[in-house]
Amino acid sequence: MIKLVLLRHGESQWNRENRFTGWYDIDLSEQGRKEAANAGKLLREAGFVFDVAYTSVLKRAIRTLWTVLDEMDLMWIPVFKSWRLNERHYGALQGLNKSETSQKYGDEQVLVWRRSYDTPPPVLEKSDERYPGSDPRYAALAEEQIPLSECLKDTVERFLPLWHETIAPEIRKGKNVIIAAHGNSLRALVKYLDHISEEDIVGLNIPTGIPLVYELDDELKPLKSYYLGDQEALKKAVAAVAGQAKA
Amino acid sequence: MIKLVLLRHGESQWNRENRFTGWYDIDLSEQGRKEAANAGKLLREAGFVFDVAYTSVLKRAIRTLWTVLDEMDLMWIPVFKSWRLNERHYGALQGLNKSETSQKYGDEQVLVWRRSYDTPPPVLEKSDERYPGSDPRYAALAEEQIPLSECLKDTVERFLPLWHETIAPEIRKGKNVIIAAHGNSLRALVKYLDHISEEDIVGLNIPTGIPLVYELDDELKPLKSYYLGDQEALKKAVAAVAGQAKA
Repeated sequence: MIKLVLLRHGESQWNRENRFTGWYDIDLSEQGRKEAANAGKLLREAGFVFDVAYTSVLKRAIRTLWTVLDEMDLMWIPVFKSWRLNERHYGALQGLNKSETSQKYGDEQVLVWRRSYDTPPPVLEKSDERYPGSDPRYAALAEEQIPLSECLKDTVERFLPLWHETIAPEIRKGKNVIIAAHGNSLRALVKYLDHISEEDIVGLNIPTGIPLVYELDDELKPLKSYYLGDQEALKKAVAAVAGQAKA
Repeated sequence: MIKLVLLRHGESQWNRENRFTGWYDIDLSEQGRKEAANAGKLLREAGFVFDVAYTSVLKRAIRTLWTVLDEMDLMWIPVFKSWRLNERHYGALQGLNKSETSQKYGDEQVLVWRRSYDTPPPVLEKSDERYPGSDPRYAALAEEQIPLSECLKDTVERFLPLWHETIAPEIRKGKNVIIAAHGNSLRALVKYLDHISEEDIVGLNIPTGIPLVYELDDELKPLKSYYLGDQEALKKAVAAVAGQAKA
């Protein structure tokens, strides 16, 4: 039986400050580093061993993965980093405080930007210092691949090629895979695996730092999925993510 | 002008205990972690930026690299790990104390095992728990690729394919490369780049945790090479490595 593990990075400095992060390369908070170490401990104690790991090009996900691999004594496995696993690009909202944005635009508008499937937040200008086109880590991308803002639909569309062309083939070869990424790139995968509708994905929240295990059949169809660890702590973590945008 | 940076991992626990390490996957000491952070700081301050990194499948080299990339804010660059960059395999000496081994076999014999070009140390049995063939990180290797012991000549021969087929082509494409590895895999490269004879390589020591910069022409021939940082500290570090096997 195939197991695939998804892990959302631990709390970042900007999760803590309740700011929209997107592609901004903020680091983990101290709490986030502890969450990552705890995730590694949970995986080790549950007997997981990975052959290959995937992550984004953002340090909060990479550090989460490195910490997990260190805890599991698996620093030697191959790690592939791709912009396709980045967080959803939050456009011109990146860096803004979520509560302040709610006060300014209203809870409802912000909930649309945060959770609607196909309404992207306001776009960045290319002259904006936040424009990814001026960052060397995206130098190999075509200009039309570089987002000015993304809704979840956009994130799904740029993530899925990595799944189909790179990750799924490795799983089919029998490789045990961990993906350490972000709330929305992981929601993109969960939506795809579980055939979740555009309406229902809006209400699905993935907590930080808690391994999400998928058991898959040979066709990579989910048999079941579950979070590792203490189930009460889990409920609180999910509720905390859902409540972040309240003004 | 092309710059290539070689970095020997910081001090490991077994460097500290003066034991033969080889392929044993011992971690950095606290001192080694500081050396790695300092190497990253030196590289950042000297204005280096890397596009791609190579390291071994041993955590003392990987952690050194991770620490350097963290210091340089380059955690996002691709990192390739290969057994071909591992330390020389020390055969049946792995784990033994260098001074005790000198007392038992004599300084001269130990110096031959440590520094002769083509005399390997006593071989491991395949039933030995130290045999790499039972370690999952070497599962993809053919049995004849898995060493029972290596002299430097053996290390040169198994390292060079990685150089010719993987690293050198990336450098020729204009990529800025760092290689974080081990005393003997780096000596193998230095021997090759600088056309050092089998006799002279015996006396060449690479200190831990100090970036070694090669400036190369378009044919990847060295124009010059130098260590970054304080030159007095460097001399002490080189002398310390040379003196390790004295009984």
